[in-house]
Amino acid sequence: MADWKNFDKLEAFGKLKAVKPVKLQEVMSGESGAKRVKTYSVPMAAGLNYNYAAKAVDEETIDALKALAEEAQLTDKFEELYNGAVINTGEKRMVLHHLTRGQLGNAVNADGGDKREFYIGEQKKIADFANKVHNGEIVNAAGEKFTTVVQIGIGGSDLGPRAMYLALENWAKKNDCFKMEAKFISNVDPDDAAAVLASVDVAHSIFILVSKSGTTLETLTNESFVKDALKKAGLDPSKHMIAVTSETSPLAKSADYLQAFFMDDYIGGRFSSTSGVGGAILSLAFGPEIFARFLEGAAAEDKLAANRDLLKNPAMLDALIGVYERNVLGYPSTAVLPYSQALSRFPAHLQQLDMESNGKSVNRFGEPVDYVTGPVIFGEPGTNGQHSFYQLLHQGTNIIPLQFIGFKDSQIGTDVEIQGSTSQKKLCANVAAQIVAFACGKKDENSNKNFEGGRPSSIIIGDSLTPEALGALLSHFENKVMFQGFVWNINSFDQEGVQLGKVLAKKVLAHETEGALKEYSDLFEI
Amino acid sequence: MADWKNFDKLEAFGKLKAVKPVKLQEVMSGESGAKRVKTYSVPMAAGLNYNYAAKAVDEETIDALKALAEEAQLTDKFEELYNGAVINTGEKRMVLHHLTRGQLGNAVNADGGDKREFYIGEQKKIADFANKVHNGEIVNAAGEKFTTVVQIGIGGSDLGPRAMYLALENWAKKNDCFKMEAKFISNVDPDDAAAVLASVDVAHSIFILVSKSGTTLETLTNESFVKDALKKAGLDPSKHMIAVTSETSPLAKSADYLQAFFMDDYIGGRFSSTSGVGGAILSLAFGPEIFARFLEGAAAEDKLAANRDLLKNPAMLDALIGVYERNVLGYPSTAVLPYSQALSRFPAHLQQLDMESNGKSVNRFGEPVDYVTGPVIFGEPGTNGQHSFYQLLHQGTNIIPLQFIGFKDSQIGTDVEIQGSTSQKKLCANVAAQIVAFACGKKDENSNKNFEGGRPSSIIIGDSLTPEALGALLSHFENKVMFQGFVWNINSFDQEGVQLGKVLAKKVLAHETEGALKEYSDLFEI
Repeated sequence: MADWKNFDKLEAFGKLKAVKPVKLQEVMSGESGAKRVKTYSVPMAAGLNYNYAAKAVDEETIDALKALAEEAQLTDKFEELYNGAVINTGEKRMVLHHLTRGQLGNAVNADGGDKREFYIGEQKKIADFANKVHNGEIVNAAGEKFTTVVQIGIGGSDLGPRAMYLALENWAKKNDCFKMEAKFISNVDPDDAAAVLASVDVAHSIFILVSKSGTTLETLTNESFVKDALKKAGLDPSKHMIAVTSETSPLAKSADYLQAFFMDDYIGGRFSSTSGVGGAILSLAFGPEIFARFLEGAAAEDKLAANRDLLKNPAMLDALIGVYERNVLGYPSTAVLPYSQALSRFPAHLQQLDMESNGKSVNRFGEPVDYVTGPVIFGEPGTNGQHSFYQLLHQGTNIIPLQFIGFKDSQIGTDVEIQGSTSQKKLCANVAAQIVAFACGKKDENSNKNFEGGRPSSIIIGDSLTPEALGALLSHFENKVMFQGFVWNINSFDQEGVQLGKVLAKKVLAHETEGALKEYSDLFEI
Repeated sequence: MADWKNFDKLEAFGKLKAVKPVKLQEVMSGESGAKRVKTYSVPMAAGLNYNYAAKAVDEETIDALKALAEEAQLTDKFEELYNGAVINTGEKRMVLHHLTRGQLGNAVNADGGDKREFYIGEQKKIADFANKVHNGEIVNAAGEKFTTVVQIGIGGSDLGPRAMYLALENWAKKNDCFKMEAKFISNVDPDDAAAVLASVDVAHSIFILVSKSGTTLETLTNESFVKDALKKAGLDPSKHMIAVTSETSPLAKSADYLQAFFMDDYIGGRFSSTSGVGGAILSLAFGPEIFARFLEGAAAEDKLAANRDLLKNPAMLDALIGVYERNVLGYPSTAVLPYSQALSRFPAHLQQLDMESNGKSVNRFGEPVDYVTGPVIFGEPGTNGQHSFYQLLHQGTNIIPLQFIGFKDSQIGTDVEIQGSTSQKKLCANVAAQIVAFACGKKDENSNKNFEGGRPSSIIIGDSLTPEALGALLSHFENKVMFQGFVWNINSFDQEGVQLGKVLAKKVLAHETEGALKEYSDLFEI
């Protein structure tokens, strides 16, 4: 059994604080910089590489991080997790999202069966359903094929699947495996559902209701919204809807759905993209084979995360460098900057993944911690961000670590050559340039044009954004967040911080308010 | 002439630091909280209100902020700005975006004419052009009406106009003034242009090339991309493109465009939504009358920003509370949380507006400052964010000030009643509940479920998101950012921090690299 200790009780934390700071401007200059780019690189799955040359670390730092990984027993804890220990101490649950894409350790039994078998079974059910929709066995009342799939879900049932869909939409179109257009309804703002419904042909649409508990108010509200629209169009909602939920939820055996697909309490919403939550919509949109390739990429990356050697474990290395930046260097936020328009909503997914998992102030035993935990995560695709908030990243008064992502090739392949280079080359040239600009800076007599540098970044670089590469990317960040939670000794798998707002909103709607809450309700004329 | 002093040289800064901290949990409880919500409110234009009851301020704080506003001569500086002083010291330019929507002070003459007249003239040219497109006087080669407008621009030529379009798209459809669908191409990633082009009917599309200098590489590259597509479709690009640029740019008199509309060097990209940069696309999409109403809202809000009385000047008050949070309370970031799906990209626009303007480390004279300046800005619409990163906002180890935005009514009006309330009421109930949850928290014996509270927020609340309300919102934040720049004594109107990356990217493309830059280029096989 691993020993769960607070971060500040580890000897390795003290040693890490004593490490000599690395001057990025110096080490990234000249031959030293060239050597770092060549050697500070860890292979990932699906042809990706994690390159940390432009992080403010050196061999001494890495040694200290190795010691930290060992003393914090990160690999042992991950092993316990994938072997079915109750890692989610708050909700007293196992944490099994890795099992949706592979078997890293022992069989895990629960709810009367082998969980890996259970997840595979649901994947097969989904694949079967998707194939029947695609080949016309499952059709609408008029006997016509469905052309569109609309996911109704919020938070983890929305951001991850939406980001993954957008990431592969153009790839699928290019590679002749685009089956159905996907749309998403998430917000309880009625304009969200109304606008999406106005943009689709409901008679040829399948709606996926995604709620683990079957009680998420926004999702149930939007389901009613959709049912109303279907009825108004003279359609039978139960012939247009499927559910992704838990077997114990009220939706599980309802006649309101064509079919229900199951997940369980061992998969948190923000870790559910590789479960049926992502599986149903991605299988319908691109075909089950593509979803399977996405899972393979994630599974291969998970294997690397189980590696005890820090320099062969990119997720753990990324996690520990992040901890060093957060707890020793004192940086409060991290920017995620994919140089790929297809990853336009990937930062929003990572924002949830990271901030909901590690935005905690108590340890896994409920005791307050005396150190900072999860940072603020934000980001937009490059080069767009360069013409926006990069000003602050380059010359602002705070240092913000950067996570670049880039690919040699575009997804669609249509390109144009201007001033001697293609758009894709320009895109890649920009990310290369930014890394060096941030790290090294540039002296200028005009202080307004002076760049101090010393602004750390890493890059995940690949050939192109394929389903496998996307799966590997997703897994990398899920495991990074998990390892950071282990170091901080917090429970990354619950989210009690979202409960109070729910309770108060119910009071408002029931008109059981007083004081400030009543006055705010009055302002909105509730 | 105003006296431009560093923030830490002001007596008022010292006094502000000495102000007794306000315990939000206490003052927002019971009758005190109710009274604050009723009285801590400043009317804005277009029926909006800025309510700061849940900010950690009281009368003493406000008095200190009043003294700061006075000593920093904020109103005088704004007066100088709108009367045409060279406020942008870095680039030695006037700052005239307010003139695109109204005349706050004296006539401003430059480039041989009255600038207000110039902006109005361009608006009229745009209105004329848009009307001709709408009524079929300007048509494609086949004599058919244009149905779609595509903006090609990046940064300020993209984020603001895109956010404004999305904010009014459903409103326009509902109010029968939706004229043309709008799309946006921004990223140099070739997949961006390729995907947008695949989604439109180019034969019925007008493309707006937006670049003040006429030299933005991304934009010129994407223009070529579009021209290629038009030619491949057998179309004459010059019959499908207009330009928004400066009169001195190479695009100004080119035969490549149906017509060119002008802005000038006195309007920064991020402040250009009310110039032709936003005007062309919004006038084409919704009609010039709607764009005019948007400008009216901005002009009315600008007038409030000129008010010397802090409690009648919501932008200045918001700015000063932000400075207090940043420089005295030490909070490094701010979240923008609109409870309106229509404002889905408004946070991304504010992210640019704020971080590009105030992410600076030197004062307006080029001397390093000894205090922190602009914070990190991020955000997503609620209620979505509640199911995502709010966990960290509620229970994370750092406090993050929050800027809520909410409206009593939805834009489309289609709604559904579930469990006794409409979706819109649920949306409003949630924002009311969140404000109180963040401010007051809730004690719980289970520390995992304990909410400390003390997390400050303000809310801008209105009846509904109309063109006028959107204009007022935009102006509010533009002026807020300007006032904060005045307090920090920085130049909010240049962006030298984006230059180094551009220079290095050019070197990469020219293969003039060495050291780390060469190695990164090699990784991308450039």
